[in-house]
Amino acid sequence: MTTMPHWLWQRTRLTPDRPALEFSGRWWSFAELERFARAWAEVLRSVGVKRETKVALLIRNQPYAVALIHALTYLGAVGVLLNRRLAVGELAFQLGEADVEVVVYDPSQDDQVKALRSRWPGRTWLCAEPQLTAGASPPKTGELSAPPINLDSTQGLMYTSGTSGRPKAVILSYANHWWSAMGSAINLGLSPDDRWLACVPLYHVSGLSILLRSVLYGTAVVLHDGFDASRVNTAIFEQRVTGLSVVAVMLRELLENLGDRRYPPSLRVMLAGGGPVPPTLLEAGQARGVPIYQTYGLTETASQVVTLPPEYALRKLGSAGKPLFPAEVRIGLADDQGVGEIWVRGPNVTPGYYRREEEDRRAFADGWLKTGDLGYIDEEGFLYVLDRRRDLIISGGENVYPAEVESVLMTHPAVRDAGVIGVNHARWGKVPVAVVVVADDGLSAADVKAHCATQLAGYKVPRKVYFADRLPRTASGKLIRRLLHDIVPSAMEGDGADADG
Amino acid sequence: MTTMPHWLWQRTRLTPDRPALEFSGRWWSFAELERFARAWAEVLRSVGVKRETKVALLIRNQPYAVALIHALTYLGAVGVLLNRRLAVGELAFQLGEADVEVVVYDPSQDDQVKALRSRWPGRTWLCAEPQLTAGASPPKTGELSAPPINLDSTQGLMYTSGTSGRPKAVILSYANHWWSAMGSAINLGLSPDDRWLACVPLYHVSGLSILLRSVLYGTAVVLHDGFDASRVNTAIFEQRVTGLSVVAVMLRELLENLGDRRYPPSLRVMLAGGGPVPPTLLEAGQARGVPIYQTYGLTETASQVVTLPPEYALRKLGSAGKPLFPAEVRIGLADDQGVGEIWVRGPNVTPGYYRREEEDRRAFADGWLKTGDLGYIDEEGFLYVLDRRRDLIISGGENVYPAEVESVLMTHPAVRDAGVIGVNHARWGKVPVAVVVVADDGLSAADVKAHCATQLAGYKVPRKVYFADRLPRTASGKLIRRLLHDIVPSAMEGDGADADG
Repeated sequence: MTTMPHWLWQRTRLTPDRPALEFSGRWWSFAELERFARAWAEVLRSVGVKRETKVALLIRNQPYAVALIHALTYLGAVGVLLNRRLAVGELAFQLGEADVEVVVYDPSQDDQVKALRSRWPGRTWLCAEPQLTAGASPPKTGELSAPPINLDSTQGLMYTSGTSGRPKAVILSYANHWWSAMGSAINLGLSPDDRWLACVPLYHVSGLSILLRSVLYGTAVVLHDGFDASRVNTAIFEQRVTGLSVVAVMLRELLENLGDRRYPPSLRVMLAGGGPVPPTLLEAGQARGVPIYQTYGLTETASQVVTLPPEYALRKLGSAGKPLFPAEVRIGLADDQGVGEIWVRGPNVTPGYYRREEEDRRAFADGWLKTGDLGYIDEEGFLYVLDRRRDLIISGGENVYPAEVESVLMTHPAVRDAGVIGVNHARWGKVPVAVVVVADDGLSAADVKAHCATQLAGYKVPRKVYFADRLPRTASGKLIRRLLHDIVPSAMEGDGADADG
Repeated sequence: MTTMPHWLWQRTRLTPDRPALEFSGRWWSFAELERFARAWAEVLRSVGVKRETKVALLIRNQPYAVALIHALTYLGAVGVLLNRRLAVGELAFQLGEADVEVVVYDPSQDDQVKALRSRWPGRTWLCAEPQLTAGASPPKTGELSAPPINLDSTQGLMYTSGTSGRPKAVILSYANHWWSAMGSAINLGLSPDDRWLACVPLYHVSGLSILLRSVLYGTAVVLHDGFDASRVNTAIFEQRVTGLSVVAVMLRELLENLGDRRYPPSLRVMLAGGGPVPPTLLEAGQARGVPIYQTYGLTETASQVVTLPPEYALRKLGSAGKPLFPAEVRIGLADDQGVGEIWVRGPNVTPGYYRREEEDRRAFADGWLKTGDLGYIDEEGFLYVLDRRRDLIISGGENVYPAEVESVLMTHPAVRDAGVIGVNHARWGKVPVAVVVVADDGLSAADVKAHCATQLAGYKVPRKVYFADRLPRTASGKLIRRLLHDIVPSAMEGDGADADG
């Protein structure tokens, strides 16, 4: 068991006056952020939050959310970071499964929360509104101690939907975050003057890890509530942003907005994850001198685990790179071309799923996490990811798991069988489409989509619904999704083609 | 138990072609250094070295020594790094106490080794000579695996003489080195282009830690066999050295040699440890824009544990700074001025002394290491070290422990009592002088020094010997060393004043 000083407390003791956070033109130093976090910790304590209490966060990328995430660490409470874009039914399932006792929500989630409270009474609900103006009148916080951090303890739970379609909570320990941050620093370098722009959601591991690295490194975060290419580029030019995390669709919009300009030399890392970056986009970025670092990461690895340095960006085009220093990557059960399942190991890898022993048994072997993704490693040790999880659909940076959508389709009484795949889409990268076998010829594509919309976030609802007599399945009955591509067109160009098939 | 990939193996997989080591104009890449280390590991394995074998190193700062230190990690063997300046009697004691089975020695140590072998037969002795030309004909090394590193396991033992005067071996785990390296990177920053100059001995923790950080960070080491101010300055100017570790006496000579020049901006860290740096020297460095980082560290903390960033160098003149991120510092048993014993805690602190349970009990309390040094912490959290260990004499960067010298003096049959203190010396910083009470008036200072020279390294032999009728002692009989300063002159200027007192 390794312990170390409380992270934000120690950071504040070491460099109280350094800039910690910028949002809409306002700056917080580490000392100010710590006061803000302690104020939130007092609020949480007053409603009974203590060590190991599960506190769900339904947050936007706002300063209070940064303070909240750190506030939990003062109490030893476990943050359950929920995707606020989920449907009420999905949220209710996750709140229950994670044993959540307290929910802190953004005022903009009010309608969702009203519906959730009726389904899920008896818990504590806190709206973030009264705390939105940080430091206006700092409450008394002298009594709250900053407990040392036991690295084996749990910082938070973060949901990921397994290929089974049933969401499961990834346990992330402080050690996972610490090792991830150190692995990243070794690879990307580290300067006390670094400023990382967070325009990815804080409830994703890509966003959360930015906050934690900031405190460990003593570097600043420039926070944006959502992604806007023009605002991001302005920040890069005017606020001396040194790094940011993007997905491919964001990178494309940034380059379009950039036009003929070139980024200033202060921008040293454009970390591109959330799925492979199209080669044409990499080339366009390279031509403009953008310091793109392709990366492969999972919630289970506390963000990046494999990253391609820019000096290899052209020679190893399409590769995700090599493992971070503390981690290892191998291909499990490779075929004769060397293609197989990507396995990762290292102290940044989750200890397991919350209360899912069966998933743990399936996913872990001898310390290796079997990611479910397919790929290969070339003779120089560079990883190529062929499928971001076997059939995962990444739509505008969000994960859509076919099995989850299929299981919702199958709940319709007139649907006998269903298969979901992703098809290319100019704006979103991929969108899900469904192929269904129906018992009732009167069922329309619109009916099927309306059914899904009651249970799934909008981005998970199939864009098109196709009808078939039967679906391709193995002798043992497993759906062969790749054969569904023979049934549907391989690409939909633009939103205009949105009429049902 | 945390494991991670083998350090040099992983570094070589990640960045095989990056520069790893420079010595006298020759460069080794990480891939070449790894071949060199594996070749040494084969040699060691051939003489029976295996997991947990204690292998003593009597080395100079030469490339083979770098390869050797890494070679031990391939076998899981424990390096016992010996100070080659010690007398034969001292070395024999340490070899025996540390259960050393194999000794690898530099050809220049041949005479010492001849004497040691006669006292200490039955072990294996390897001269480094045949391996001095690295990579000339790399042996077959395919079979040697690179075992994962269990961070709790022991990397090495390093002797430090306690105030009792009896040397004790500090156990340094891989975790100690890992956390030290990460704490340093967080504080000083880290760039893949960094180049650290090692002109301090590799058998000291300040030198060893440079080698290990290089592999963890993927950055180069420029190795000098000893300190020469002119050569060091040339390397800073011509080899783009970005950082180096110095003690005060080295810093003074560097500035003298620098003259009116200014260091290039590529030099970003001059880490000054091994005892407080005189204020006049700090001011001289500051005036020349030298990026001095004062630091406080111990063998027991795997090098730095408290470091002062340069932006505080003038405002906090004389302070050692604040703890590294993973560490904590407090003052134990402070008096009413806040002065007390410096205690440190953190994952970079040694698990203890090798087979010295009594020392462990004395030195550790609730995870804190009681350093024996005196100091205080100001209201902003900056540490001031008043005595580098209560009575420790640092002479030219080497530690001289008065109690050890006193115990040797007392072995002379005509010496009834003895006390040793350090006095200022223009070249060496401090030198030891002795005050003795003798039973035989015929005993000369030369006799006393000759007696010491048979049992102690030259730098530990008292420069002057004074005679007294009695020594100041407490009622309980403890020597009050500070009162010895009333007996001897407070300073000796230069080597010319070397005649006996």
